[in-house]
Amino acid sequence: MFNSDYLRELSDKVITNLVVPPEAGKLFEPVRYILSLGGKRLRPVMCLMACNLFNDKIDDAVMPAVGVEVFHNFTLVHDDMIDKSDLRRGSPTVHSKWGADQAVLSGDVMAFVATECIGQAPERMLARTLKLFNKTAIEVCTGQQLDIDYEKKGLVTEGEYLRMIELKTAVLIAASLRIGAIIGDASEKDQDLLYDFGRSLGLAFQIQDDVLDTYGETRMFGKKTGSDIVANKKTYLLVKALEMAGGEKLRQLRKLLEARNHDPEEKIQEMKAIFDELEIRLQAEKLAYEYFNKAFESLDQVAVKAERKNEIKQLAVNLIGRAR
Amino acid sequence: MFNSDYLRELSDKVITNLVVPPEAGKLFEPVRYILSLGGKRLRPVMCLMACNLFNDKIDDAVMPAVGVEVFHNFTLVHDDMIDKSDLRRGSPTVHSKWGADQAVLSGDVMAFVATECIGQAPERMLARTLKLFNKTAIEVCTGQQLDIDYEKKGLVTEGEYLRMIELKTAVLIAASLRIGAIIGDASEKDQDLLYDFGRSLGLAFQIQDDVLDTYGETRMFGKKTGSDIVANKKTYLLVKALEMAGGEKLRQLRKLLEARNHDPEEKIQEMKAIFDELEIRLQAEKLAYEYFNKAFESLDQVAVKAERKNEIKQLAVNLIGRAR
Repeated sequence: MFNSDYLRELSDKVITNLVVPPEAGKLFEPVRYILSLGGKRLRPVMCLMACNLFNDKIDDAVMPAVGVEVFHNFTLVHDDMIDKSDLRRGSPTVHSKWGADQAVLSGDVMAFVATECIGQAPERMLARTLKLFNKTAIEVCTGQQLDIDYEKKGLVTEGEYLRMIELKTAVLIAASLRIGAIIGDASEKDQDLLYDFGRSLGLAFQIQDDVLDTYGETRMFGKKTGSDIVANKKTYLLVKALEMAGGEKLRQLRKLLEARNHDPEEKIQEMKAIFDELEIRLQAEKLAYEYFNKAFESLDQVAVKAERKNEIKQLAVNLIGRAR
Repeated sequence: MFNSDYLRELSDKVITNLVVPPEAGKLFEPVRYILSLGGKRLRPVMCLMACNLFNDKIDDAVMPAVGVEVFHNFTLVHDDMIDKSDLRRGSPTVHSKWGADQAVLSGDVMAFVATECIGQAPERMLARTLKLFNKTAIEVCTGQQLDIDYEKKGLVTEGEYLRMIELKTAVLIAASLRIGAIIGDASEKDQDLLYDFGRSLGLAFQIQDDVLDTYGETRMFGKKTGSDIVANKKTYLLVKALEMAGGEKLRQLRKLLEARNHDPEEKIQEMKAIFDELEIRLQAEKLAYEYFNKAFESLDQVAVKAERKNEIKQLAVNLIGRAR
């Protein structure tokens, strides 16, 4: 069995050595840049671990795993441009460094570099792997569309919000695991279970991410606490609060959302006061915990010896428990 | 054998009926729009004809053929945005109708719809088809990068220009034909010949397109004659003129390129006068003709009976000969 540090380093090494067509220097400069900013490499590590559950040889899964990571970074390049974000992992985003046009074009080429990596799956698994990858990629684009649409929409239901983060975040983690399982020659049943594991884990992760943005320690989280509140971002907390608040509290909440030139620190404190009265944090953590448990229930049913699951369990715990 | 009208209608029908995920309405509205603007459907028709050279059954090639067309339209959506073009086939471009952000996101999803169509190639041809498609897609992005870079560059050589249009235009036509040949079960040799046919044809087509923009009849060409000259676009004509002009003529040419607020009609006339003195049109048409002949030499060597090639020959003649 391989541990997560080894798999992360392996993914990093392959990503760094992706071959670049020599005449396309300027096109690939932003590609190399965004891929060099690192990050947890969660998706390729998950993919390789899923393969490793069933098979001691994981070589066949390496390029598809890297493909998922390249795809993920492709979405970051375009999403950061659309969201006008200046920083990613503490460094300037591609569009703020090279301009919007270059971000579009260098992002585009990443979509096909990703598919090229996926295309290196073993031939007898290729059709299934590619089909899942394409379906997932279309879902991720749909999730980003919903995210954009919901930012402009007054009321978003909890169900709509959960579907949005499922599409935008959870299905790609789920697909990473299923691709690893396909290439590891897992049964259809085990593929389904690992997909469900990833889906639930992704939902838990995203809800917790929302909680951390408002309640986390700045230093641990690496992002200024309360930035979602200041930006009126439709997080699980805000969506839930808008759904639960009535009468006076709803008016208060709406006023806070509409206020211009409000002092950021005051806005954060007032919003948190409303959240606290409605016990929003508690409900968010409860829901994240439920998804987390659901994820583990799925993983437990995967038909391999319990000890083979230790690495992937530990990774999930580290992911979700990082600020507990 | 199928004729080009039938194959164009078949491509149109499949494109119109591509299944759209029901919850992604807004994301797919621009996709349906750009795909409904029509055009010649040259790439899918070429793909299906190439398959039909070797095989009377072309069903297996239909989805990959449509995939190439969806990819082509994906590049149009993003290129029009980057080039700030307002019109495409006489209708508003996606970004001018829905804004730049939507053009990026709806374009993105088309990349994966295209790959999904390619993914429906028969399983035993899938790896080869996908590899060629990805390689070509990366080349097309590279061609667009060179096009952007060359617009800012003072001097572009004839060789650089030809390589740019090869990547931006010719390789996709070549790949369409090769994908058809792969799925039609052609020999490696015949695949190469059809690829070369498409590559040469694409180069001839693009050079002739440059000639037509300056010398074509407005009515036939559907675009205002001389628009490339007004925009200082680096066409084959301008690149060649800059390469050939010396002394006083070069100064004259540079002055014309740098002039601000120059009357467009005057600029067109003065530029054409320089082109005429240098016999640029003649050289461009000679080169296009050479590529056109080269294309037919490749096609002639394909190991199927001459009469099977009549349809594809006629299509090529119609394409290049449209304004002769």
